[in-house]
Amino acid sequence: MTERKYNNDYVQDILHIISSDHTIEEKRNLLDEYHDKDIAEAFELLPKEERKLFFDYFDIKRLSSIIGYIEDSEDYIQDFGYKKYAMLLNKMDLDDAVDILENLNENTKSRLLPYLHVKRREDIFLIKSFNPNQIGHEITTNFISIERGLTIRQAMKELVRQSSTHDNINTIYVTDHNQYYGAIDLKDLIVARENDDLEEIIATSYPHVYAHEMISDCIDEIREYEEDSIPVLNDDNEIIGVITSTDITDFIEDEQDEDYAKLAGMTEQSDLDETVKDGMKKRLPWLILLLFLGMIVSTVVGLFESVVAEIAIVVCFQSLILDMAGNVGTQSLAVTIRLLVDENISTKDKLKFILKELNIGLSNGMILGFLSFLFIGFYIMIAKNRPFMDAFILSGCVGVSLFVAMVFSSLVGVVIPMFFHKIKVDPAVASGPLITTINDLVAVVTYYGLAWLLLIQVFHVH
Amino acid sequence: MTERKYNNDYVQDILHIISSDHTIEEKRNLLDEYHDKDIAEAFELLPKEERKLFFDYFDIKRLSSIIGYIEDSEDYIQDFGYKKYAMLLNKMDLDDAVDILENLNENTKSRLLPYLHVKRREDIFLIKSFNPNQIGHEITTNFISIERGLTIRQAMKELVRQSSTHDNINTIYVTDHNQYYGAIDLKDLIVARENDDLEEIIATSYPHVYAHEMISDCIDEIREYEEDSIPVLNDDNEIIGVITSTDITDFIEDEQDEDYAKLAGMTEQSDLDETVKDGMKKRLPWLILLLFLGMIVSTVVGLFESVVAEIAIVVCFQSLILDMAGNVGTQSLAVTIRLLVDENISTKDKLKFILKELNIGLSNGMILGFLSFLFIGFYIMIAKNRPFMDAFILSGCVGVSLFVAMVFSSLVGVVIPMFFHKIKVDPAVASGPLITTINDLVAVVTYYGLAWLLLIQVFHVH
Repeated sequence: MTERKYNNDYVQDILHIISSDHTIEEKRNLLDEYHDKDIAEAFELLPKEERKLFFDYFDIKRLSSIIGYIEDSEDYIQDFGYKKYAMLLNKMDLDDAVDILENLNENTKSRLLPYLHVKRREDIFLIKSFNPNQIGHEITTNFISIERGLTIRQAMKELVRQSSTHDNINTIYVTDHNQYYGAIDLKDLIVARENDDLEEIIATSYPHVYAHEMISDCIDEIREYEEDSIPVLNDDNEIIGVITSTDITDFIEDEQDEDYAKLAGMTEQSDLDETVKDGMKKRLPWLILLLFLGMIVSTVVGLFESVVAEIAIVVCFQSLILDMAGNVGTQSLAVTIRLLVDENISTKDKLKFILKELNIGLSNGMILGFLSFLFIGFYIMIAKNRPFMDAFILSGCVGVSLFVAMVFSSLVGVVIPMFFHKIKVDPAVASGPLITTINDLVAVVTYYGLAWLLLIQVFHVH
Repeated sequence: MTERKYNNDYVQDILHIISSDHTIEEKRNLLDEYHDKDIAEAFELLPKEERKLFFDYFDIKRLSSIIGYIEDSEDYIQDFGYKKYAMLLNKMDLDDAVDILENLNENTKSRLLPYLHVKRREDIFLIKSFNPNQIGHEITTNFISIERGLTIRQAMKELVRQSSTHDNINTIYVTDHNQYYGAIDLKDLIVARENDDLEEIIATSYPHVYAHEMISDCIDEIREYEEDSIPVLNDDNEIIGVITSTDITDFIEDEQDEDYAKLAGMTEQSDLDETVKDGMKKRLPWLILLLFLGMIVSTVVGLFESVVAEIAIVVCFQSLILDMAGNVGTQSLAVTIRLLVDENISTKDKLKFILKELNIGLSNGMILGFLSFLFIGFYIMIAKNRPFMDAFILSGCVGVSLFVAMVFSSLVGVVIPMFFHKIKVDPAVASGPLITTINDLVAVVTYYGLAWLLLIQVFHVH
């Protein structure tokens, strides 16, 4: 026997084996050692002629699992032909098959469908009857289920029988007259003695979820169970499938993407395949709202027209102050949204959090306010050729406004999303426009107000 | 036997059972049906006197698993006392025990540690020797490992023996003279016949990962295997633990949090427990950079001082245009960052993506530019009491600038992160400040430039 190698470049190894002089039989044995995912990656790197040979290397069940790892399948169907490819779709995990079919163009799909088993077509039809935000859309039928009342030995036999086609065996589901009854941890079945009562190891309060439930409503709950699979029931309490921990990871990622897409002012996350029209629709609502809210800011700035007309130089630093306030607000908002994801957070913790953000805003505001007072003061003296006093009175206005705007923004960035969360409005969607507008207003009023007071009323700078 | 109920309020059921008149024995049997996570939730809702009884309801192994679901354990240690609590920590999944210990205050920790088994203390010490960004920091020792060369029957017996203490049994790891050799899918072991060769079902190229690897470097790769657990090796190729699919979900979530924290101008994501000083440190660098980049924008705005001095009303709409440009840039950036997470994306797809974003920018820019031309035109006529022509020349400047700024921002929001990604600089960190600055510059130059040209040079508006 050979020494084990600890490289991680399994894909290269696989390519080597395939291009080697070994017989088909030898290659088959060697490839047996590798993970389906690595073989799938190698598959994608091979020329068409080599890919065709995959039907010789693997049995249909294994090849279907390999092909299940390939996301963009359109190009590879021709390697095997529609009929053979449909055989793979029949054996594949249901959710992988659905994913593949959804990414194919209509023509290819309609040529494949007639070759699918009736049962598989029905399952696919069932899944498609749910919308993509529902649990039912993501189920797989790869699970083991036994009827209640078996002996330990019968259950074990049934497990072995079913595991030839279904390899999610860690949890075995139990039905009672076709209705979901409970779950058995495989470990308990394995260590059970022949004379034990099967009923003893069935957990009848094992978590379950209904196919019609929205993913976003139940994902956090499901995740906390830390299980490899969770049964999915229809409204008659029959198990129609399971969702696996892989699905849960995907859901969590999608949920988070959605949250942050909303933070960036989009109604949902985009992907590569969406049309321009869909992309527009996701972004336009927020932009139009922002346009009208922006008019409020414009109106307030308009109140200070006379200040600007008299001392035009003040306008130079408006963008600086607004950008800084905007960024501080975004930082606080991002931190707060993540905090609010945790449903169990106490009021005490929330207050502590607000105080901390305020504290950070105060400290950073002080540092940046002082920095800009110094730096902008000298900048105005040198670049704008203004006298020392004038320069530092103006940079003082900038510094103080920056400080006030930053403190205020950090507070608003926390309180507004908490408020929306409280009244059950999605804080990620609603907070952005309001925070931007409030921050702009505070910054503008402070800055131009101070400039009017100090530069015009008190020191009569021109 | 009772009819099965399909409610999901298991926690309430558990509280009912505990407060019922049943004997301890009956309660124990009833509680047996529930999931550890639900029992943990009920536990947290009970008064101290009731919590103490948990040692009567469950054996130590089960209770340790229940306690492993409780995040904030400081308050509950007193229920059992240090010695009994340490017994739970001994039996718990290693990573859960480490999590609990890390959240305890130093005093509590030092009182617990002496009661822990030597082996457990060593494992904890091992885990703590890795920093939190390394795989080794997140391992659990809950896995089954057998020595190579056993018969099928011996392997099965060893599995049953070890499964009394380790319940991650889905994949059985195989060692060869203490070194990692391969993995057996439990399913293959169960369906194997007594005379089969164990070697046949060992996958020697099952994926593995080294404890010293950075989580961010290998998490995407690990995830793609879609396995329930992945073995973690030390530099001598010995298995020191595994990471599970639950860990992988956590990692993915953390990675995404980091990405988006960076987008919001923070060096990393904050949490509730961080100090004000840490919070400042994470946000200050970006803010200071923004301050200095903001000075560039101020300088450019300064070039148009004379325009503002002459027609002060133009200043009203600066914030509107910059806010819109900023938001469009953020939208494009957020979409692009998610696209770049997928390492396998082709140049063709990238170009397609840029074109699509440009297209969305053009369409949305056209809509909003036109809207603001109309709306702001009437606004200026009515609110500012200006003649029709003047109002619509100015609102025309706003509309065109908004259009140009939005198209440009959507392009910059895609191209800049792609550029940083290309030169291997983290696009989420580097893109924000640069995009804000470039967008501000383009918007300001277009707007004030147009205002100068049309209002002053061509139409002589005052």
